[in-house]
Amino acid sequence: MSAFYYPGSEAFKGIPTACISDALDTFGINGGLEGLRALGSGMALAGPAYTLQYEPVPEGETASAGEFIDEVPEGHVVVIANGGRQYCTVWGDLLTHAAKIRGLRGTVIDGCCRDATAILQTGYPLFSLGSYMKSGKNRVRLAARQVPVTIGSTVVRPGDIVAADDSGVIVIPKDVSEQAYRRVKEIEVMEERILLDLQNGMPMKEARIKHRYNQYALRVNV
Amino acid sequence: MSAFYYPGSEAFKGIPTACISDALDTFGINGGLEGLRALGSGMALAGPAYTLQYEPVPEGETASAGEFIDEVPEGHVVVIANGGRQYCTVWGDLLTHAAKIRGLRGTVIDGCCRDATAILQTGYPLFSLGSYMKSGKNRVRLAARQVPVTIGSTVVRPGDIVAADDSGVIVIPKDVSEQAYRRVKEIEVMEERILLDLQNGMPMKEARIKHRYNQYALRVNV
Amino acid sequence: MSAFYYPGSEAFKGIPTACISDALDTFGINGGLEGLRALGSGMALAGPAYTLQYEPVPEGETASAGEFIDEVPEGHVVVIANGGRQYCTVWGDLLTHAAKIRGLRGTVIDGCCRDATAILQTGYPLFSLGSYMKSGKNRVRLAARQVPVTIGSTVVRPGDIVAADDSGVIVIPKDVSEQAYRRVKEIEVMEERILLDLQNGMPMKEARIKHRYNQYALRVNV
Repeated sequence: MSAFYYPGSEAFKGIPTACISDALDTFGINGGLEGLRALGSGMALAGPAYTLQYEPVPEGETASAGEFIDEVPEGHVVVIANGGRQYCTVWGDLLTHAAKIRGLRGTVIDGCCRDATAILQTGYPLFSLGSYMKSGKNRVRLAARQVPVTIGSTVVRPGDIVAADDSGVIVIPKDVSEQAYRRVKEIEVMEERILLDLQNGMPMKEARIKHRYNQYALRVNV
Repeated sequence: MSAFYYPGSEAFKGIPTACISDALDTFGINGGLEGLRALGSGMALAGPAYTLQYEPVPEGETASAGEFIDEVPEGHVVVIANGGRQYCTVWGDLLTHAAKIRGLRGTVIDGCCRDATAILQTGYPLFSLGSYMKSGKNRVRLAARQVPVTIGSTVVRPGDIVAADDSGVIVIPKDVSEQAYRRVKEIEVMEERILLDLQNGMPMKEARIKHRYNQYALRVNV
Repeated sequence: MSAFYYPGSEAFKGIPTACISDALDTFGINGGLEGLRALGSGMALAGPAYTLQYEPVPEGETASAGEFIDEVPEGHVVVIANGGRQYCTVWGDLLTHAAKIRGLRGTVIDGCCRDATAILQTGYPLFSLGSYMKSGKNRVRLAARQVPVTIGSTVVRPGDIVAADDSGVIVIPKDVSEQAYRRVKEIEVMEERILLDLQNGMPMKEARIKHRYNQYALRVNV
């Protein structure tokens, strides 16, 4: 086990998701979660996933709010797989306050949050399909926790690294996190060099060739 | 008739739509308008609805802009039911200036506005499916005013209370507005107590049980 | 040839897209690009289009990033027709820096950009369907440059004027740009007069009739 997926790890914090995606591309891994976006501009997070699977409540049945927040370990990112449902919500201001008290790194929802104004005021990083106001109580329920969940076509396993910024949310499988981190660092160096050459007047095409830009996404281990 | 749906009423101003939604849930009423969002972060409104029904203009016919703004009473919220059409707009900067001059509380559109930059500068609260620039003239026309209109699966009647914030738009039927307001106040007290207990170190599960959190959405009159 | 579609032209800069749309409506031209929006609030641009057609890469083939930026002339707006694809991106921070160095006016994408945080920091005007993080490399490729492209139902030709603001993106065909500009100026004067009358207490209906507001969209050459 590596430091990269320990709860305390912040290795991927501050690295653009685009750079992480390019690193994963070199391994043939597509970790992007399509359609999810930051609740507020400038939000970012990185940390190991604590996964939750939600499911609809059959018509006529009742169901309480999901009880899980007390069990999420410090430093984790809550990942709620709610099948893209936008007619109700699975996260709000009380959970946000509880998450901050527990030292969580943020929340990612394949669905909606509510209390958007209050969450924005806390600065807690939240990524979702949008916000709405209807409670999930009686509409959806927690079916399983800490199991592999599927968001779009991407599987998220407990302990996988989740990273997010204004470009969206990406998942780094835990068993490649160290290799991905090394690749990210190579790409960052290359991109800084291209930018420096651009600023010194070199054409983009020449700068990309010089620094082997296109090699970094041809699914070969450069 | 109650003060809650008088034009001057501001009873629901400042109350989160999530809290209003939870109150309505206890009566089995779902007032949320799915997909509508604030034009700018931090916008909020509350007030009685002045409803307008729009319809498409048959191909080849012409039609003027809707003439209604001079008749909307002070303190009302304009609610435009435009069937979710996003290929043209039914609200812009001139209407915004006129609405401010008349002392209206805001506008809610099941469709698009235009002049987004100018509207944002006025601070006038506007909630819609998005913004675009094409005029509705010759494309859609005003079919009826102050009639019950349907947005998504929710019926909005003239005088119903409309409330909106960063989580979206919700409608409180006027005949339950007083009961809903009392229920909202109970929920607010409960949520403040839960938050206080969380801040004092109580686990969420315990705090929710202590304050009967889940009772408030089980469609029973607690 | 008119100054309006020369690379140096800024004639339409600062004019609201809604006003441009009303002018085009009087000629029966619909230039709006549905669904495209500013990456950040307050972004605006105007300038001649440099068009690029993208296409998907067949499964199993590889493809480099599109090489075009070195050839876009100063003062142009890059228009990328990527068929509305949102599963990968065709613009990022390096291209943004190169575009600023070359003195371009902005970029319009029928698809997604990445590096949203970095682009927002530069203030470069970017309009797209959204942001994501996956590279377009190996997923889409540049098929043609400076050809007529279709975005939604609107054709954009090289040299057409593109204008954009918080209400979205609109295209002014180059062969009507001068007439459209004159019509825009007439509409601006009319709207200012209506606004002044509103502020002096005139009802909207009266002000619109007085200044012949509805004449300006009845597809007749007033």
